[in-house]
Amino acid sequence: MTAPRFGHVDPRDLALFTDRYELTMMQGYHETDYDPLATFSVYFRSLPSDRGYAVAAGLEQVLAALESLEFDGDALAFLADQGFDNDFLAALESFSFSGEIRAVPEGTLIFPNEPILEVTAPILEAQLLETLVLNQVGYQTLVATKAARMADVVARRGDDQELVDFGSRRAHGVDAGLKAARAAYVGGFDGTSNVLAGERFGMPTYGTMAHSWVQSFETERASFEAFADSYGDDAIYLVDTYDTVAGAERAVAVADERDVRLGGVRLDSGDLIELSKAVDDIVGDAGIVVSSGVDEFFLRDFFDADGIATAFGPGTALTTSKDAPSSGVVYKLTAVERDGELEPSMKLSPGKVTYPGQKETYRVERDGSYVHDVLATREESVDGRPLLETVVEDGSLVADLPTLSEVRKRTRRQLERLPEGHRRVSDPDTYEVRISDGLEALRQRTEREIVDRERKG
Amino acid sequence: MTAPRFGHVDPRDLALFTDRYELTMMQGYHETDYDPLATFSVYFRSLPSDRGYAVAAGLEQVLAALESLEFDGDALAFLADQGFDNDFLAALESFSFSGEIRAVPEGTLIFPNEPILEVTAPILEAQLLETLVLNQVGYQTLVATKAARMADVVARRGDDQELVDFGSRRAHGVDAGLKAARAAYVGGFDGTSNVLAGERFGMPTYGTMAHSWVQSFETERASFEAFADSYGDDAIYLVDTYDTVAGAERAVAVADERDVRLGGVRLDSGDLIELSKAVDDIVGDAGIVVSSGVDEFFLRDFFDADGIATAFGPGTALTTSKDAPSSGVVYKLTAVERDGELEPSMKLSPGKVTYPGQKETYRVERDGSYVHDVLATREESVDGRPLLETVVEDGSLVADLPTLSEVRKRTRRQLERLPEGHRRVSDPDTYEVRISDGLEALRQRTEREIVDRERKG
Repeated sequence: MTAPRFGHVDPRDLALFTDRYELTMMQGYHETDYDPLATFSVYFRSLPSDRGYAVAAGLEQVLAALESLEFDGDALAFLADQGFDNDFLAALESFSFSGEIRAVPEGTLIFPNEPILEVTAPILEAQLLETLVLNQVGYQTLVATKAARMADVVARRGDDQELVDFGSRRAHGVDAGLKAARAAYVGGFDGTSNVLAGERFGMPTYGTMAHSWVQSFETERASFEAFADSYGDDAIYLVDTYDTVAGAERAVAVADERDVRLGGVRLDSGDLIELSKAVDDIVGDAGIVVSSGVDEFFLRDFFDADGIATAFGPGTALTTSKDAPSSGVVYKLTAVERDGELEPSMKLSPGKVTYPGQKETYRVERDGSYVHDVLATREESVDGRPLLETVVEDGSLVADLPTLSEVRKRTRRQLERLPEGHRRVSDPDTYEVRISDGLEALRQRTEREIVDRERKG
Repeated sequence: MTAPRFGHVDPRDLALFTDRYELTMMQGYHETDYDPLATFSVYFRSLPSDRGYAVAAGLEQVLAALESLEFDGDALAFLADQGFDNDFLAALESFSFSGEIRAVPEGTLIFPNEPILEVTAPILEAQLLETLVLNQVGYQTLVATKAARMADVVARRGDDQELVDFGSRRAHGVDAGLKAARAAYVGGFDGTSNVLAGERFGMPTYGTMAHSWVQSFETERASFEAFADSYGDDAIYLVDTYDTVAGAERAVAVADERDVRLGGVRLDSGDLIELSKAVDDIVGDAGIVVSSGVDEFFLRDFFDADGIATAFGPGTALTTSKDAPSSGVVYKLTAVERDGELEPSMKLSPGKVTYPGQKETYRVERDGSYVHDVLATREESVDGRPLLETVVEDGSLVADLPTLSEVRKRTRRQLERLPEGHRRVSDPDTYEVRISDGLEALRQRTEREIVDRERKG
């Protein structure tokens, strides 16, 4: 009998978490004895629908991965088996990242074409990172953005309600469960239901009871009594298993009989707005947790209709970024070394404008509000605050990493400076990203040069 | 300086990959000294939009997780820190799964309300599994279904084109990257670009070159020459970096000059249908790989318009199940022990019909075609082929696990028996799932009994 395989990814495996073409190209570079310095830029071509901004997240995971990126004996044996050459594999044995990474700090608001990070390294190294960087940064940025949209609705319309990630079960695999919890926190959530995420990232965890608790006892009342006996003061009771209003009354009655303080009730089905009002009259000062189908659109409608809650538990919509499950974030070669110099490079895409070369993004602020950004070449100096920081130099981490709480505060601080029109959850205003004169000139010159070269080639 | 944390999940961590409420309830059961046997059923309430069927996948990961499910010292220390009681934690120290799992084999077509698996165990054990089971089975079932839809369009309309998962970079984290590759294979794909998935699950890996390869050389021609020199016969050239038709001509010319056999060209942007025809005239017998924006709808349109290809590389749409990123799969208590007997249980949801008790699904076939299914109680015997198998008994694996190739063949075999109307990629016919007389009577009786008990409670 074959033993079942879970398919874990551990730190020693990350070098193989890559598309085969990366290794194919790396072997090609190795065999051609051609390993120019190259810059790859990670950015969104456009924001997902209804997004007026995105919240950069996932950089810490890229930095952690870099530190463990190596090809051990098992990896090399597998690659030999897959047909890679011994000479190339011998070179991989001593693989380690030696390049530079510039990035915006996590929690930075970003807009189309603005680098989330730029990798500059020998192309053989830089190429390997593509799949993993996009996988980690793309997903966390999606979820941090989704979370920030919800947190921002609560900040603007709500009454300081807690937001807790309840979506591990619907996340795409275990890594997504953990990273969604982290990214939700970056976006402004207060915690997660996922215990392992709490352990890994030090964020608060939350959780009370499911319908199965209520069902497993002879009656709902018996289930509440058992819970009150176990948990005493401040417990939260799930009241919609059979009849929500009756359940809320029962929770109040049981707390009263057992002489414990009612923490609150949770509503997980039905017309949550109407039920929240009905239940509010019953539970008094106790909390009301609302947890089914919660997303930014729900929250907007909930507050519009004067729903009453002390906490929300978004799940599926958060961890799958349900209305925009894919980020479209790319990892594009923007410069390559020729004759000892980094020269701008770009793909020619009909209908798509791409910007070559290493870049800097400048944010222009007036009276505490963001006015517009300027995307410029790295060499230019333009008005505004530059967003990119050098975090890795010669393969070593050179920046102090912020704590997750600091990142979370950055997101909030930046959102407060973004005019409200860009923060609307539907049909937001487009934030202006100007292209500097230097970058536009570089783009035109690079395009002309490529067309000329290809004509001759 | 704090070291960056990737947030890995290793086998010893899986017990903590759970929603905190599971542990809260478990502690409550422990303190109440109440640990009845319980059955939880995993199923879809309804299929995602445009789906006429789903392909069950992910069982192997559940079985693997069960074998490693334990609370080690670190886990217990963390839970103590989170406020769980010592007495409960002492009980967790000896935690292991002792129950039964019945499941449909992976690759089985399933329909709404039909159990993908049923867990029967002391409730304290069964409760712990919820988050992880939904996370693994839900996601893989989504991707296997998406993949099967694409493979089925190719099988019915195409010319035996290869299908390769190119979507790791857009998957939600590293676990999703691996599990998507596996589930895609279950659904009928031929392989993946993800090297680690190839290593973990023994499936073929594919990969040639990216735009960055072409850009990194002085000219496209120089890049093709270097690739031909490295890889010789049968190499595949990405031809759309600057001008697709010129690129294809160049690939043919370079292969000719270098006296190597052209493997094929890859198209990754532009009007892929028109370009595939234009390029077909140029490349002759060599392959054409199409790899941007591929999903089942694209494939249908591609074949409708007589596009020409030898392989497809779906990415984002596959690994995010883009049009339906969430499965809605649930883990519901359907029976609980009372007075030594498993009694049916259910939540009362206005507007939703749920079926209590342990179940069996029967598939009725006529002349090699599936006609309808019957959802019945476990005790009933009904015409048709029962789908559930006992895979774990007394906590031990008792079934032979099929290889991934066998699973893949099961998917294909079952799809061939499903009438075409249910296989349409848009607006498919609804496959009939009849409810047996026994199950319908049980549902009504259970509902009546709950209403009676609650009235008294």
